[in-house]
Amino acid sequence: MNTTPCDILITNIKILPAAGEKIIEDGFLATRGGTIKLMGPMASMPAALSAAKTIEGHGQLVMPGLINGHCHAAMTLFRGLADDLPLMTWLNDHIFPAEAASVNSEMVYCCSQLAAAEMILSGTTTVGDGYFLEEAAARAFCTAGLRAVAAQGIIDFPAPGVPDPSLSIEAARRYLNALPTNDLLIPALFCHSPYTCSPATLLSARELAAEYNCRLFIHVSETKNEVLEHQKLHGLRPIEHLRKLGFLAENTVCVHCVWPDSSEIAILADSGCGVITCPESNMKLGSGIAPVPAMLAAGIKTGLGTDGCASNNDLNMWGEMDSLAKIHKAVTLDPTIMPAPVVLDMATRGGAAALGLNLGTLRPGMAADMIIIDLQQPHLTPFYGPDLLIYALRGAEVRHSIIGGKLVMENRQLLNIDIKAVMAAVNRLAELHNQPLGEGDNGENDFGQDAGIKKH
Amino acid sequence: MNTTPCDILITNIKILPAAGEKIIEDGFLATRGGTIKLMGPMASMPAALSAAKTIEGHGQLVMPGLINGHCHAAMTLFRGLADDLPLMTWLNDHIFPAEAASVNSEMVYCCSQLAAAEMILSGTTTVGDGYFLEEAAARAFCTAGLRAVAAQGIIDFPAPGVPDPSLSIEAARRYLNALPTNDLLIPALFCHSPYTCSPATLLSARELAAEYNCRLFIHVSETKNEVLEHQKLHGLRPIEHLRKLGFLAENTVCVHCVWPDSSEIAILADSGCGVITCPESNMKLGSGIAPVPAMLAAGIKTGLGTDGCASNNDLNMWGEMDSLAKIHKAVTLDPTIMPAPVVLDMATRGGAAALGLNLGTLRPGMAADMIIIDLQQPHLTPFYGPDLLIYALRGAEVRHSIIGGKLVMENRQLLNIDIKAVMAAVNRLAELHNQPLGEGDNGENDFGQDAGIKKH
Repeated sequence: MNTTPCDILITNIKILPAAGEKIIEDGFLATRGGTIKLMGPMASMPAALSAAKTIEGHGQLVMPGLINGHCHAAMTLFRGLADDLPLMTWLNDHIFPAEAASVNSEMVYCCSQLAAAEMILSGTTTVGDGYFLEEAAARAFCTAGLRAVAAQGIIDFPAPGVPDPSLSIEAARRYLNALPTNDLLIPALFCHSPYTCSPATLLSARELAAEYNCRLFIHVSETKNEVLEHQKLHGLRPIEHLRKLGFLAENTVCVHCVWPDSSEIAILADSGCGVITCPESNMKLGSGIAPVPAMLAAGIKTGLGTDGCASNNDLNMWGEMDSLAKIHKAVTLDPTIMPAPVVLDMATRGGAAALGLNLGTLRPGMAADMIIIDLQQPHLTPFYGPDLLIYALRGAEVRHSIIGGKLVMENRQLLNIDIKAVMAAVNRLAELHNQPLGEGDNGENDFGQDAGIKKH
Repeated sequence: MNTTPCDILITNIKILPAAGEKIIEDGFLATRGGTIKLMGPMASMPAALSAAKTIEGHGQLVMPGLINGHCHAAMTLFRGLADDLPLMTWLNDHIFPAEAASVNSEMVYCCSQLAAAEMILSGTTTVGDGYFLEEAAARAFCTAGLRAVAAQGIIDFPAPGVPDPSLSIEAARRYLNALPTNDLLIPALFCHSPYTCSPATLLSARELAAEYNCRLFIHVSETKNEVLEHQKLHGLRPIEHLRKLGFLAENTVCVHCVWPDSSEIAILADSGCGVITCPESNMKLGSGIAPVPAMLAAGIKTGLGTDGCASNNDLNMWGEMDSLAKIHKAVTLDPTIMPAPVVLDMATRGGAAALGLNLGTLRPGMAADMIIIDLQQPHLTPFYGPDLLIYALRGAEVRHSIIGGKLVMENRQLLNIDIKAVMAAVNRLAELHNQPLGEGDNGENDFGQDAGIKKH
């Protein structure tokens, strides 16, 4: 009898094929190469399947991996460095000096590995990342086996790796040219914001993104004050400004969008761009609550992100989903708004659509990006259905992770990262910041720590 | 040389003695009987300490155990049974029928054990619980080794164990008389709410609580609609009504308090009562956001609770702390409001004060209720200070738990609960509810499922 070869075979497992779909109670799933080859109820599993690796899934659930649509991975170094401060104190007295003292390629590589580890351990299989020296972050994601849309930062201030801001577009082009071709690594660009990038910079970045057909991220409309200042300077709200410049297109990803008014929501929808909302960062920094229900109703491709660790302070998508599902209920007094399947859809298909990727569902032919969750936990008992994942899962229940058909975590052991060594290296880098402020070595580079503006 | 005997000795550990205090970087802590005998920097540890059990604490942190000020432990059975529904649909079509079909002493014992397990696993060392057939819940807490203020429910409807509501006060007195005396078990009463208990019932409960000098819980001012209905019926807001009745006193614990106006906040403060806020339950059910900063400013003893699993859907105090710290920042646009140490204080000393217990700090002579956290985790790296616990800890990092000087969890193994057996038993009970609605056996008892009011 001929056998049908596959790489990874998961048996006797609950399958949640996509957000809002019915669970296959006792299923199997087989991968081959980077994709899903076969899946269905155990009763329909071909007898002749021959797998290089079999995972027995009893008591577990397999679902699409989570898509963290917005991150600054390297900022794990600044996790919890300064909390609960006024925005400008936090930035000018803590985050900018810490960045000035610390950011270089080695730091970005090391701290992005830590970020990748944290994300994989909590169920993220794809990240949309943006930072400076992003080629080092991209290397870290490759090492970890994490799928990434890795975006090089563009800003009109001296930045790590780009001391002369007039060369930031040139540096971005070099980045796009140099990044290794790789199924899991998608290069992109990241304009910091409409208030830190001039119209000329935004337009050049827009043209470069069109030329390379890559994603173009931008922080926009994060705080009420940003909108007011933008109106004062330009006579337009920031999203109106981006539309007028021609910055918004299918491949633009607008991050935050906490304060769009209804006409700006219509602009976002008309442009076909994606939006990534970062609810916990917006809550913690006192930025506000993004009008996610209205953006979804307008048909905007909307995903979910953690933002960087300096603001959040973790990279855990379960926390984001839980917060997103609950906060709109709290402020509208409507318990039916933002139901769990809608939130999970944003963290899977929605984020994928915003990032321009065809991910977020388990089907034959789709990319084999999935996580396997151990349901046999007191806090997941009983398990009446998948909505519980949104309201009770914490991250540590994710036992295995498969990205592009490759096992990257097995029984909570990261297969590609020496996590102890990475943690030790990050702790060594953190020693600099453990001293009271002003006593540390502030290093030699200097990029905007006195600019009085929010950079990340 | 004489040795100084102690029971548990923890060495080489970071000690957070209380919320907002400075960490002892390399400390020791010794218990004897139910209390802390000695603690301090390792350099000051007496050479002659002789311990029955030593825990090497390198890379870990010991802190006061968390106090879950409000729970309905037995409702773990209804975790995730029905989410994201309008309140009355949720109650009348799901929760009340499920309770009618399921609640009996065996169920309360079994499901409260599951709750105790979940709480210990996530760092709670004391719970304020309220339900019917509470003697069974109290037995479960004793089995688990969890400190509990266990309150017998009082309501003017037929309830489990009290089919005739006119006997509810008598049943409560029997409960107070019968509960075993135990250092860890504190009996109390729980009037369901001002809209399900008549003034006569409230007054009788008040007198009974005074006679037994026990805590008297009540759900109050949970939803805007409750306040409006109360005003219509009684011409007073609910907290005004409780004050007028003489219900509020030092030993009263008002739960929820989402909608007190400023005069009611003053009433709560004047009465000396405690308040327990349940932010995630209030968010998820669309009840609103309690004015916690104003209640703290008024000097009210304010603690934090999870509420029951039917509404929340877990019993994890880290999630509550994270949500409480963030939601007020989001709605006030002030990132400095509800800073991490204030939130941790509520989850430790604040809750203890509301429950009438002297807990929540690690000091010689204080009760030995503490948790030991493994900081060597990617998402807790680097660790600049204890505020990170509020914003990044998930629960599974709690390695050991000591309650009343007794180890109840060691290396995440529960020492007093056969968790696999308990989960299996709860799953068997849950089978009844896994069927589509209307097809289950609705049992024989009947307590208020058609009353159209919120019972829990």
